[in-house]
Amino acid sequence: MPVPLQASPARLWTDIDALSALREPVAPGWTRPFLSPSFVRSRGWVAERMRAAGLEASVDAALNVIGVWPGMSPRRPALMTGSHTDTVEGGGRFDGVAGVVAAIEVVRLLQEAGLALERDLVVVDFAGEEPNAFGLSCVGSRALSGQLEERHLALRDPEGTRLDDALAAAGGDPAAATRLGWQPGSIAAFVELHIEQGPILEAEGLDLGVVDSIVGIDRCAVELRGRPDHAGTTPTRLRRDALCAAAPLITWVESAADAHGLGTVGAITVEPGSLNVVPAAARLGIELRSAEEGWLDRTRAGLEACAREAAERRGVDAVLSWQEREPPVHCDDDVREAIAQAVRDGGLTPRRMASGAGHDAAMIAAVAPIGMLFVPSAEGRSHAPQEWTDPEHLARGTEALARTLLALDGGSTAA
Amino acid sequence: MPVPLQASPARLWTDIDALSALREPVAPGWTRPFLSPSFVRSRGWVAERMRAAGLEASVDAALNVIGVWPGMSPRRPALMTGSHTDTVEGGGRFDGVAGVVAAIEVVRLLQEAGLALERDLVVVDFAGEEPNAFGLSCVGSRALSGQLEERHLALRDPEGTRLDDALAAAGGDPAAATRLGWQPGSIAAFVELHIEQGPILEAEGLDLGVVDSIVGIDRCAVELRGRPDHAGTTPTRLRRDALCAAAPLITWVESAADAHGLGTVGAITVEPGSLNVVPAAARLGIELRSAEEGWLDRTRAGLEACAREAAERRGVDAVLSWQEREPPVHCDDDVREAIAQAVRDGGLTPRRMASGAGHDAAMIAAVAPIGMLFVPSAEGRSHAPQEWTDPEHLARGTEALARTLLALDGGSTAA
Repeated sequence: MPVPLQASPARLWTDIDALSALREPVAPGWTRPFLSPSFVRSRGWVAERMRAAGLEASVDAALNVIGVWPGMSPRRPALMTGSHTDTVEGGGRFDGVAGVVAAIEVVRLLQEAGLALERDLVVVDFAGEEPNAFGLSCVGSRALSGQLEERHLALRDPEGTRLDDALAAAGGDPAAATRLGWQPGSIAAFVELHIEQGPILEAEGLDLGVVDSIVGIDRCAVELRGRPDHAGTTPTRLRRDALCAAAPLITWVESAADAHGLGTVGAITVEPGSLNVVPAAARLGIELRSAEEGWLDRTRAGLEACAREAAERRGVDAVLSWQEREPPVHCDDDVREAIAQAVRDGGLTPRRMASGAGHDAAMIAAVAPIGMLFVPSAEGRSHAPQEWTDPEHLARGTEALARTLLALDGGSTAA
Repeated sequence: MPVPLQASPARLWTDIDALSALREPVAPGWTRPFLSPSFVRSRGWVAERMRAAGLEASVDAALNVIGVWPGMSPRRPALMTGSHTDTVEGGGRFDGVAGVVAAIEVVRLLQEAGLALERDLVVVDFAGEEPNAFGLSCVGSRALSGQLEERHLALRDPEGTRLDDALAAAGGDPAAATRLGWQPGSIAAFVELHIEQGPILEAEGLDLGVVDSIVGIDRCAVELRGRPDHAGTTPTRLRRDALCAAAPLITWVESAADAHGLGTVGAITVEPGSLNVVPAAARLGIELRSAEEGWLDRTRAGLEACAREAAERRGVDAVLSWQEREPPVHCDDDVREAIAQAVRDGGLTPRRMASGAGHDAAMIAAVAPIGMLFVPSAEGRSHAPQEWTDPEHLARGTEALARTLLALDGGSTAA
């Protein structure tokens, strides 16, 4: 018999709404980027909400907020859940935040039901999941899984500031952050609730999704260097127009999308950007996503060939700088089945699906079995102010998360 | 017998070099944009150089610097020469500046040769010839030719500042500037010396060009509005990607160039510009140039059709905002022949050519017969820090300009 657990949509919404007040005042939507003033304030707010729910909360060297609900057998590997609360520029109120407030609500639910866990339950608000000015996403989950390295700390933002200096200035401890890693075996399972950020659950009228894999991501900065000639007096054949060399790349990435993967040119700038000067430089930010490494390899090679051809034809130099690949990650079979069963126990139908977005769970997969639970996104919108998830849907997801953790607490995944 | 006149390359270079010190300190190259602090300081510098050469100098309501060398019969229509000293962002030291320092050198030359003119010689440093943040080029020559209107003064820069407010803040008088216009008949002829800004004279080993027409210019701001979806979770077919809609326009403009005209996409920005967000907005700045209005009409229509098709296919909204056309301008036959004869009298071969760049002369054509004289640009470079004209070439051009003005002083163009 499944335990009857009823999450409170109102309580979940109250937390989401209160956290949304912490944002950068001059930015659009809900903007709380990694290391910004509003992000730094959010550390204290999340820790306070954890303490109010009975967790032992602290902020670690990578600025993750960690809340521990001690179990009855604390020497057994812990259960971990959580997500992130940083946002993209002009983002919404739910991406990441849903998984953090749901995790705190799980502790309230279990306490109200008079239940306790054998294992410690560790609730984490991971720092800096979204791409940031340093070109490094998942900073906190990278550190917690022992994958934050010296070379990451030496990354610089466009103003030239190093990541370690910025992290220290925000109250973190960069050196200690590289030694944060939890040992493999110390986490019995990690389960992340997240909004779908896509249109599938809503389109199919389903309430909850169970993720089987998280796409891998290749990110590339393309720099095209031509010559700033006068736009009136230089015949087209004598130009070295960096923007003309960039246009075919945008079209190529658009057309490369198929059932196995897709790409996006999300950013472009040109210099000097004057109406009557031939663009001397164009810089593009490109992402490729697929659950298949073979697709990423092929598409990357195709993009490089396209850039070479487009640049050469126009006497332009092309430099493609690829960030290290975030490889595709497959969820643990046992954790996935525990989530699916928890969804069924709530009287709902689990929708098996891939995640097109990267997540902290993909980092934690390096040290623990992972699984993910998706709640619907209205109109599939995300990374936009219109991002919305019905608090009723979030409550159903929270209940499924609670039942999943109860099952894993005594389940076969446990060491 | 032509008058022997010898311009000083050293004196010309000294003036160019000294003026180049007035520039915006944080910008690349030589950047002295209309109404910037360095532009405002340049007004006084140019007036001082004029006074040192014996001209009566003042700054008018539109911030043109006007120097008058009084003639012996001041009631006859005046001769006018000059150019501009503002620059594009990251521009060079010669574009416009060459014509102003040459005009001042002409007065020195004639005085040193013991010559005087019947007519007043008016030397002008026109304010704001280059495109600026208000979307209005040739501000000073527009005012001086009676074409600066109230609606121009209401234009706003991207920060929302009105042109009239910015002009007043820099020391101009916007209301008076709209009443500056010289009457048709009051200027016997206007002759502008300018750098070619293209590769033809150098490629053909010729020293001086005589312009027969100045291209017309259509400028267009394209705004494409899509939707900022998550780049990982939104299938390509469900996206409304503004940058994907922009790419075919860039390629179309590139391919529209032929022997009769050409186009440039000089500026592009996207929002939000995050690597993992589908671009919700793209803004392009486009220029089309041709000496034939028919070419401009056809190309404009083709661009609009391309934008409609590219936007519609992707569910994107397209808005094209065209600035008022700068129509093609044909030089006056008599003035052109006077310039050509002056070149021949210096022992050189006049190269007849079109100007692919717009010029103050095109504005002054509304109230006076005009002609233009080109000096070579090294490698055809312009609107770039590498812009260069050999001071020897500039001296030959200055001498031809002096002989042209002498001829027109008593010539058939005079009223």
